[in-house]
Amino acid sequence: MAVDGNRIRCAILGASGYTGAELVRILARHPDVEIAVLTADRNAGQPLERVFPHLGGLGLPDLIALDEVEWPGLDVDVVFCALPHGTTQEVVAGLLHRTGHDLIDELLHETQEDLIAGMPRDVRVIDLSADFRLADLESYATWYGHAHRAPGLQVEAVYGLTEIARDNVRDARLVANPGCYPTAALLPLVPLLAEGLVAAEDIIIDAKSGVTGAGRTAKESSLYAEVGEGVHAYAIGNHRHAPEIEQELTRAAGAAVTVNFTPHLMPMNRGILATIYVRLDRGADASALRSALLERYEQEPFVRVLPEGVGPATRHVRGSNDCLIGVFDDRIKGRAILVSAIDNLVKGASGQAVQNMNVMYGLGETTGLQQAPLFP
Amino acid sequence: MAVDGNRIRCAILGASGYTGAELVRILARHPDVEIAVLTADRNAGQPLERVFPHLGGLGLPDLIALDEVEWPGLDVDVVFCALPHGTTQEVVAGLLHRTGHDLIDELLHETQEDLIAGMPRDVRVIDLSADFRLADLESYATWYGHAHRAPGLQVEAVYGLTEIARDNVRDARLVANPGCYPTAALLPLVPLLAEGLVAAEDIIIDAKSGVTGAGRTAKESSLYAEVGEGVHAYAIGNHRHAPEIEQELTRAAGAAVTVNFTPHLMPMNRGILATIYVRLDRGADASALRSALLERYEQEPFVRVLPEGVGPATRHVRGSNDCLIGVFDDRIKGRAILVSAIDNLVKGASGQAVQNMNVMYGLGETTGLQQAPLFP
Amino acid sequence: MAVDGNRIRCAILGASGYTGAELVRILARHPDVEIAVLTADRNAGQPLERVFPHLGGLGLPDLIALDEVEWPGLDVDVVFCALPHGTTQEVVAGLLHRTGHDLIDELLHETQEDLIAGMPRDVRVIDLSADFRLADLESYATWYGHAHRAPGLQVEAVYGLTEIARDNVRDARLVANPGCYPTAALLPLVPLLAEGLVAAEDIIIDAKSGVTGAGRTAKESSLYAEVGEGVHAYAIGNHRHAPEIEQELTRAAGAAVTVNFTPHLMPMNRGILATIYVRLDRGADASALRSALLERYEQEPFVRVLPEGVGPATRHVRGSNDCLIGVFDDRIKGRAILVSAIDNLVKGASGQAVQNMNVMYGLGETTGLQQAPLFP
Amino acid sequence: MAVDGNRIRCAILGASGYTGAELVRILARHPDVEIAVLTADRNAGQPLERVFPHLGGLGLPDLIALDEVEWPGLDVDVVFCALPHGTTQEVVAGLLHRTGHDLIDELLHETQEDLIAGMPRDVRVIDLSADFRLADLESYATWYGHAHRAPGLQVEAVYGLTEIARDNVRDARLVANPGCYPTAALLPLVPLLAEGLVAAEDIIIDAKSGVTGAGRTAKESSLYAEVGEGVHAYAIGNHRHAPEIEQELTRAAGAAVTVNFTPHLMPMNRGILATIYVRLDRGADASALRSALLERYEQEPFVRVLPEGVGPATRHVRGSNDCLIGVFDDRIKGRAILVSAIDNLVKGASGQAVQNMNVMYGLGETTGLQQAPLFP
Repeated sequence: MAVDGNRIRCAILGASGYTGAELVRILARHPDVEIAVLTADRNAGQPLERVFPHLGGLGLPDLIALDEVEWPGLDVDVVFCALPHGTTQEVVAGLLHRTGHDLIDELLHETQEDLIAGMPRDVRVIDLSADFRLADLESYATWYGHAHRAPGLQVEAVYGLTEIARDNVRDARLVANPGCYPTAALLPLVPLLAEGLVAAEDIIIDAKSGVTGAGRTAKESSLYAEVGEGVHAYAIGNHRHAPEIEQELTRAAGAAVTVNFTPHLMPMNRGILATIYVRLDRGADASALRSALLERYEQEPFVRVLPEGVGPATRHVRGSNDCLIGVFDDRIKGRAILVSAIDNLVKGASGQAVQNMNVMYGLGETTGLQQAPLFP
Repeated sequence: MAVDGNRIRCAILGASGYTGAELVRILARHPDVEIAVLTADRNAGQPLERVFPHLGGLGLPDLIALDEVEWPGLDVDVVFCALPHGTTQEVVAGLLHRTGHDLIDELLHETQEDLIAGMPRDVRVIDLSADFRLADLESYATWYGHAHRAPGLQVEAVYGLTEIARDNVRDARLVANPGCYPTAALLPLVPLLAEGLVAAEDIIIDAKSGVTGAGRTAKESSLYAEVGEGVHAYAIGNHRHAPEIEQELTRAAGAAVTVNFTPHLMPMNRGILATIYVRLDRGADASALRSALLERYEQEPFVRVLPEGVGPATRHVRGSNDCLIGVFDDRIKGRAILVSAIDNLVKGASGQAVQNMNVMYGLGETTGLQQAPLFP
Repeated sequence: MAVDGNRIRCAILGASGYTGAELVRILARHPDVEIAVLTADRNAGQPLERVFPHLGGLGLPDLIALDEVEWPGLDVDVVFCALPHGTTQEVVAGLLHRTGHDLIDELLHETQEDLIAGMPRDVRVIDLSADFRLADLESYATWYGHAHRAPGLQVEAVYGLTEIARDNVRDARLVANPGCYPTAALLPLVPLLAEGLVAAEDIIIDAKSGVTGAGRTAKESSLYAEVGEGVHAYAIGNHRHAPEIEQELTRAAGAAVTVNFTPHLMPMNRGILATIYVRLDRGADASALRSALLERYEQEPFVRVLPEGVGPATRHVRGSNDCLIGVFDDRIKGRAILVSAIDNLVKGASGQAVQNMNVMYGLGETTGLQQAPLFP
Repeated sequence: MAVDGNRIRCAILGASGYTGAELVRILARHPDVEIAVLTADRNAGQPLERVFPHLGGLGLPDLIALDEVEWPGLDVDVVFCALPHGTTQEVVAGLLHRTGHDLIDELLHETQEDLIAGMPRDVRVIDLSADFRLADLESYATWYGHAHRAPGLQVEAVYGLTEIARDNVRDARLVANPGCYPTAALLPLVPLLAEGLVAAEDIIIDAKSGVTGAGRTAKESSLYAEVGEGVHAYAIGNHRHAPEIEQELTRAAGAAVTVNFTPHLMPMNRGILATIYVRLDRGADASALRSALLERYEQEPFVRVLPEGVGPATRHVRGSNDCLIGVFDDRIKGRAILVSAIDNLVKGASGQAVQNMNVMYGLGETTGLQQAPLFP
């Protein structure tokens, strides 16, 4: 057990969204964790069951507003932030009581004072929003439309793609949990780029996502009648996950990588399938790629590289923290196709967050994450 | 632990169907169970993962043909039969080595000999098919079109609606696991009929089921394009679950009950919603019904009676063994509406089968069944 | 041709909702109609194609705000109101320039003046909202939470269930187009109640609807992830369509009728299936009911009574103005089951509205409505 | 009118499949066509309504077995073949009474004799199967696993992508109606390759299809529970539509083209979205591509090139013969993205077949095909 033989006490900020609910679903059954705080501003004062009837009977604390959490005395060890993009950085800065930016100092002064009073110095944060994923401040400002409000923490934040960054995650105070699309794209690509088996140019990532990726906000484009019985590409050429993918591929390749990332909205709740088209390098073929991935992920409990001729399907990872990867020859010589599948809410968000927590607290990495996929 | 401190060794017959796969999903993570045998005639020789890719990496035995199981030495404690209706009775008779019917003697002689040779005398069977659910042989013959082939076992079989029949299940050698529709209908109705709060006449059960209820057999009526984007009623007035429901309601009411049971096929994978229209008796109203159910199910871990004004949804029990029940006033005086929701593959089949196993072996009843529902 | 050999000029108010779009889909291909005005306040100034890309290339006028329509000179013959419930009554009063209510006089004075200036005296209105469906003012106030704002028009409005009210529709100035649920329930029930073949007591209407019935408003409960892969009952015992159904059944039966009406939300875009449980009267059986319906609807182009043993499915009426009706024996003696299917946006809304228009202008009743259902 | 002022008399072979039903849906409302024959071997003797309840009330002939059609006296002008791949070639050879292959001579001798006796010499055939699409006999044998059985007709057959091949279709006796995937891929690509604006190398076609593309055959992989709530790629690198696409692109480019074609199965009934990744040539950019397509398709009633920033969705062409095309800049310099959407059963099959018929008989090309898409 991690913290003095006791259970790890966690807070989930933003428990009324889908990733928040998924954190609760997983953590409520995690043997080493106790859920101490659930925040949800709009639904403050209600039991979580009122918002998410499927999470009834679990003995959870009622929802409270974020600014009404009385941190002193809560003895929270880890905070999961499942708040909307852009709103998390001040909160995290408040939680971690450290910032190199005047704006934040000011903000803290004005709005975060209560939040941080008495905050234990050793709290650790796993942020599921996009706020700390881009390490380059300029890139952040370009893609998110404003200067980062806790730039000091950007330097410190660890991009938490567990299988790739495990060693850094272990001691991180702030983990930027990867986006769902990047997780699906990076797991197959990073090892191959690192080994130079695929070219860094002309990487094309055609991704298909279930609609929970758009969150629980009521908007016309997420209505059943607008999503059902159809498919379309969106944010073509300008989705915010593109720079995130490029950042990590650049790191892996050791040279600047620009990718084509084209997301599609699917009539299903969960799942991402990434079909990735690559040019081969160093004389590799699909078989060589498969071997490299098999070797790289041999000891990984959540990544399964499929045998020749077998491709992944999102329905076979539904509800699990698994990532399935298939590798195929292309009809065009010198090219290959990688296909990966994850559950966007689990390995693409809350499951990977818990996996990171397990790493951070020295628990078995699969603890609380062993449930088999739900099919059909 | 039940069996001499060791794990319970189980066999799953019919592992390539949906209820078989669901048994594997649950039992592979059950702390007190070991899966010793998986049969699937069409896919014999293959790893289960080939048939159900979502069940990969679990360290399971390969599929074998039923008649190639070498029972001696397997030390199997419990057999789950997830075979098609009508084909199970000989198999079970063979397993249990006992029958009062010449036909079976003959069949056993001819085809089941190998199967039973050396079978340990204390094996127990949980049958998920309909073969042992109807206690009345004539009714069975009428509804299933042939004389029962193991009539002696009919007398012995316990109808395993756990919450109602727990005491009989505990010592049963053969449990007839209830049908999915009957489970959804009986849990709300049995206590109310037993207490005389609803009239035994004119009970109308309008049920809506996901398509996995039709099994994995390739038939036109189960094709995506025939089910998607639409709804229809089927088997109106002559569904085989009607006599099963009537049998148990008759038992509860102490007088013959005939019900209207009208099933509908829904464009979804899992779930049954039963909307039940009843006439009130003894001056009861919806509130009295709710109170009676709350009292009856207060200690039950899997049945949740919802507060006034709240109705159940199948999506809130998906993947779990829960049954949610709501009670409502009818606009028509002297009537009320009961609504129940279950996952047809879990509480309506494999989950309840494991629940029964837990009871039979003295385990905590929720062991292996605590995973929270998967929503969305 | 109806109007001086010219095409009927119509206005569609509220063209950015689903029923508005469906009116456009049908009327744009109607040989005797010209779409002269399309209003949509939020999207004013845009081509309809921007809001509904499937309606591109039809040569339609751009959307304008309702209060910017310059009615004089438009020579509009008929106005379809596809506005939200509660907002329509003033608009219609304005259009028809007549009201017996001070509030309306006042409203007109203040807000509707421009709207009515120069309005041709012979404009006719088909209202797809619920505003004019309930003839009883007190009932309206009870169910909609405010006094009706154009009570004088309530007396005049004709409840336009075409097959039942055709003669009154013909000369109506204001048609209250029936709700989708009521249409599905009334077509099978009205003739049988009128002939006394089913009892007026204990009529139970279990209805299943696609999600377009909830409109295009962005709300959490209509999100894909909240509707997909599940089913639930809603507004149990207090849906506003109950009094509408009761009003028309009372008219048919000649005595007060109270019904159980229980709607369910389905994971599909379009379609309503109503499963109706009735007690038989006058010694009737299912066969007698079927005969009566066959006779009643023999000449009707849009109502098809199915042969014995055949039940309707919503997917078989998708996109069409058809209503399918099946009749079945109940297992409970003295009872029967009626099942009807419609497309909620066509026969349950815009299709029936056009059918009413055809009647009002002496056109062939099927004109513009002959397209076969789209299956799968 | 085409044929002596009378309506064109057509036969539909294979009317119990989805493309057959779709032909009926369209042709039954086509003002210049009369449906004279409907064949369906398994359902011979039944009214079509029994197989497809949505096609009731249309006054159609009953289904008959193919070999029981008494062609003489039927005066059929055009035959639509909606038979399974591989079974069509003998039938067509029989209908057209001409073959250069001994096998066919023999087959005709033995089995097709009745079929052709008295067949009018001027019957024309539109084949919706893949049998006549590949002009190269060797390629056919490679991809379909057997020598073609009517090779003489291969030479004659016209590949009927109407917008591209209209002039050849006009006088064709045998039209090979394009596959659904090829239609979606070729309409955007052919003009751009022909003009040299995109490179012939490294064309990547990531296609997403609704499940009706797999036909109505009962197979496990098309079951609702196997398709719903998930997505996967299939036939990666070896789908039979790849050589069909390459054949036509090679024709357009004037040089051999090999493409990556990766199809995905979607949880929806209808629709294909093709996302196509291309390298630019001749200094073109997305804007130049859009201009070229706009110019090329300016007069085409069924192809709509969307404005900058707007992408197509399959739901916006559902039930219509439309093809929508969007063009986008890629983040990778020198590349662009084309996205096209069609309804696989209409423009991808039966609609295009009727469009071809209209061309062949000198009718207005949109006759019978003007119905607006059905959304939602």
